[in-house]
Amino acid sequence: MPSRPSHFKSDSEIPLYQQVGNRITSLIESGTLGAGERLPSVRKLSREWAVSITTVLEAYRLLENRGYIEVRPQSGHYVRPRVRPAPPEPDFHRSRIQPTAVTLGELSVMTQHDAQDPTLLHLGAAIPNPAMLPSERLNRALSAVARRSATRATAYEFPPGAKAYRVEVARRAVAAGCALSPDEIIATNGCTGSIFLCLNLLCRPGDAVAVETPTYYGQLRVLEGLGIQAIEIPTHHRDGMSLDALEYALREHAIKAVIVTPNFHNPTGSLMPDANKERLVSMLAEREIPLIEDDVYGDITFEEERPRVCKAYDNAGLVLLCSSFSKTLAPGYRVGYLAGGRFHRELIKMQITVNLTTPTLPQLAVAEFLANGGYEHHLRRIRRMMAHQMTWLRGAVGRYFPEGTRVTDPKGGITLWLTLPEAVDCLALYDRAIQHKISISPGFMFSAKRHYRNCIRLNAAFATEETEEQIAILGRIATELATKGNGAP
Amino acid sequence: MPSRPSHFKSDSEIPLYQQVGNRITSLIESGTLGAGERLPSVRKLSREWAVSITTVLEAYRLLENRGYIEVRPQSGHYVRPRVRPAPPEPDFHRSRIQPTAVTLGELSVMTQHDAQDPTLLHLGAAIPNPAMLPSERLNRALSAVARRSATRATAYEFPPGAKAYRVEVARRAVAAGCALSPDEIIATNGCTGSIFLCLNLLCRPGDAVAVETPTYYGQLRVLEGLGIQAIEIPTHHRDGMSLDALEYALREHAIKAVIVTPNFHNPTGSLMPDANKERLVSMLAEREIPLIEDDVYGDITFEEERPRVCKAYDNAGLVLLCSSFSKTLAPGYRVGYLAGGRFHRELIKMQITVNLTTPTLPQLAVAEFLANGGYEHHLRRIRRMMAHQMTWLRGAVGRYFPEGTRVTDPKGGITLWLTLPEAVDCLALYDRAIQHKISISPGFMFSAKRHYRNCIRLNAAFATEETEEQIAILGRIATELATKGNGAP
Repeated sequence: MPSRPSHFKSDSEIPLYQQVGNRITSLIESGTLGAGERLPSVRKLSREWAVSITTVLEAYRLLENRGYIEVRPQSGHYVRPRVRPAPPEPDFHRSRIQPTAVTLGELSVMTQHDAQDPTLLHLGAAIPNPAMLPSERLNRALSAVARRSATRATAYEFPPGAKAYRVEVARRAVAAGCALSPDEIIATNGCTGSIFLCLNLLCRPGDAVAVETPTYYGQLRVLEGLGIQAIEIPTHHRDGMSLDALEYALREHAIKAVIVTPNFHNPTGSLMPDANKERLVSMLAEREIPLIEDDVYGDITFEEERPRVCKAYDNAGLVLLCSSFSKTLAPGYRVGYLAGGRFHRELIKMQITVNLTTPTLPQLAVAEFLANGGYEHHLRRIRRMMAHQMTWLRGAVGRYFPEGTRVTDPKGGITLWLTLPEAVDCLALYDRAIQHKISISPGFMFSAKRHYRNCIRLNAAFATEETEEQIAILGRIATELATKGNGAP
Repeated sequence: MPSRPSHFKSDSEIPLYQQVGNRITSLIESGTLGAGERLPSVRKLSREWAVSITTVLEAYRLLENRGYIEVRPQSGHYVRPRVRPAPPEPDFHRSRIQPTAVTLGELSVMTQHDAQDPTLLHLGAAIPNPAMLPSERLNRALSAVARRSATRATAYEFPPGAKAYRVEVARRAVAAGCALSPDEIIATNGCTGSIFLCLNLLCRPGDAVAVETPTYYGQLRVLEGLGIQAIEIPTHHRDGMSLDALEYALREHAIKAVIVTPNFHNPTGSLMPDANKERLVSMLAEREIPLIEDDVYGDITFEEERPRVCKAYDNAGLVLLCSSFSKTLAPGYRVGYLAGGRFHRELIKMQITVNLTTPTLPQLAVAEFLANGGYEHHLRRIRRMMAHQMTWLRGAVGRYFPEGTRVTDPKGGITLWLTLPEAVDCLALYDRAIQHKISISPGFMFSAKRHYRNCIRLNAAFATEETEEQIAILGRIATELATKGNGAP
């Protein structure tokens, strides 16, 4: 065992056992502790590092969860064989910033179509794992509401939507740094529905909108559907959208709106620092440009506290906050929301235009669950599980993917972004993976300019330890493509 | 009693008791049978008109339901006092046919906002009466589905939507003259959602679309939301869209699509004859112009059989059939459908773009109800109730509205269209009616050109006999406005 560390910070926001776990992780990743090597006994480490036995036990369990170590009964803790350091993070993507017509065509429908196939391993579409969702309790809440008020449950609930639901959304917004009144909130058809309303209101075909690159193809699909041009602004896998690049783009182009996913960006998992959020909001406010904020992953933080939203810094009413409960409660309920600032009234009209109303019962059921169902408790569980699976998946990528692979290190959300060796074509990888019943998202869907040919997005929500064999297969295919090219197998 | 009628047609599609009832109705409306007059005894009429006693009994019950006669115990059947002949039908609207920008603004939100106010009598928004809906049974079906398959119920159901639902829709389409496969159908967010997808796919801002005039403001609202111009084609309150006028418009203007509501048009209740439907479809097929067909009221016929849809005559795949179960089952479920012909694949993509998916559970619940819930039985009930209330409301309008009022004679649907004396301003009528807790729809919302200033639409779904007093108030206000003008009261 290496030298005793000088100290752990008792006043840190990171719990002591995590600090201990992180320290051992770096010893393993640096190769100081080799594969198969036995770790010090709990008692011994407790003594050496001057931490309690409980702390060591928790740290060891964390490392076990993270896939770094394993327990051998009656023997102790060992560094897992074949553990390779998780690959480094990707390079920051740079390219010319100019408007591009979006033409995703059939491609973006593909991975979502896969998501309906129960025989596949769902590493493609960013759907939550049903095992993490409180489906039965939620359905019970829905049945109870339907029983209590049968007539209301089947009647139209005209926009802005059910008051009870909007009250709960407003209540929860406090944790994201917002003081919103229920009267500023509109119930929508999921986060996609929110973003569609915003873009349909703010833009006309031919207008240009700034988006991150890479970014969720669903955002690009809305631009395509409305004939809006995309101006792709590089986004960093740690800090999110490059504000310097955005500033340049704002000078050079007429930009009608900006779309950003500051919290646990899809696909990179980046988290924009609060200072950047504040700068972004004020940059746009100066120019009177609306900011469409996608916060659909904001609740799935791997830390203790959910991050703030840009909307928290919005004094001008120019931030349109879009989100939903599709990733944390029930994708199929389609219960989203939208806080549209100064566009609120127009957005209500647009919602009536597009959908007339959204379904009543799912709104009421989610409201009931938020009020009385233990949503916070449920969130802690889903955060813990996702943090664990994300770490495990990163480790598995390290074990099985070819040399030169790079992988993001998300601080929340459910997606992981891989940059593979240049020779790998994401579509060839997709095609071969599907033959092995594994669905992935090809990287070039995440850019209007078709960048990211050698990238893929993996959904970590289904990446449990039981899928190790399939990750190994995926890594093997990638390795083959990296070395032998992408021709027919 | 007047001379014995020559005969009733035994081979007619109209049941004998209805023929008898209709005959007596015309005797009452022509004044041959006066208010308060006693009708012949059942036995006597049976003998005189050579029909069975059962037939007469059924005819008398029909007339009672229609509000024409009343039963006085131990005495017999009497023509109801104060029955005035229902006003004549309106004139056919003629105006110049040219593209118009649509700007409904806040106005169309108004009556729908009223619909949320439980203290109002809902003669405004075209919402069904909850008393006619099988809400409890439907909610039970929904709860059962949620219990049986909790995980599926909360999971995404990607477009085209749940198979079980699409199978039931395809099955029911047979009655409307269509041979549709489930694979040609897309689950949507209600009929509005269907129409929005079609227009968003087929048109760009500045394009022109032909619509009926008057027509449902929801259609106009979608045009407005998408920046599409409206070319208003006169629609007749009996036969629907004037195909001659449409032909003229097709010659004069570049028309991207046509929207029509052939079955029980909102607001007029007109029913386009099958021959016209066939001609319309072939006229447009020759020119390769898509026809967007709104059939949301098609199931609410006052006859025995639901009418055919234009889609039944579609060989070119150019008819986009839009409908929902919002008027017959549950508005708040938002379960609609779309059979888009040759645009099917593109419409699926558009659905993903706009909504990602529509909620799973309502689709499954409606599928369950359609398969096992007795939908046909339920339809018979809603048709009977609506036919009765429509007749009653027409009569009440006759009793209470000013001289010169004209009213449509719908063969189905839930809306009645009134043309009031020229002096009446529909907004003034709206404003004063709201003070009496009565909501109506001002006529000028039904035209992009702001025609119909002296028209209103009434929703007959809430117009039961118990509302006689309120109809009387409405008529009194209209009479005042007709005689004293529209200034402040």
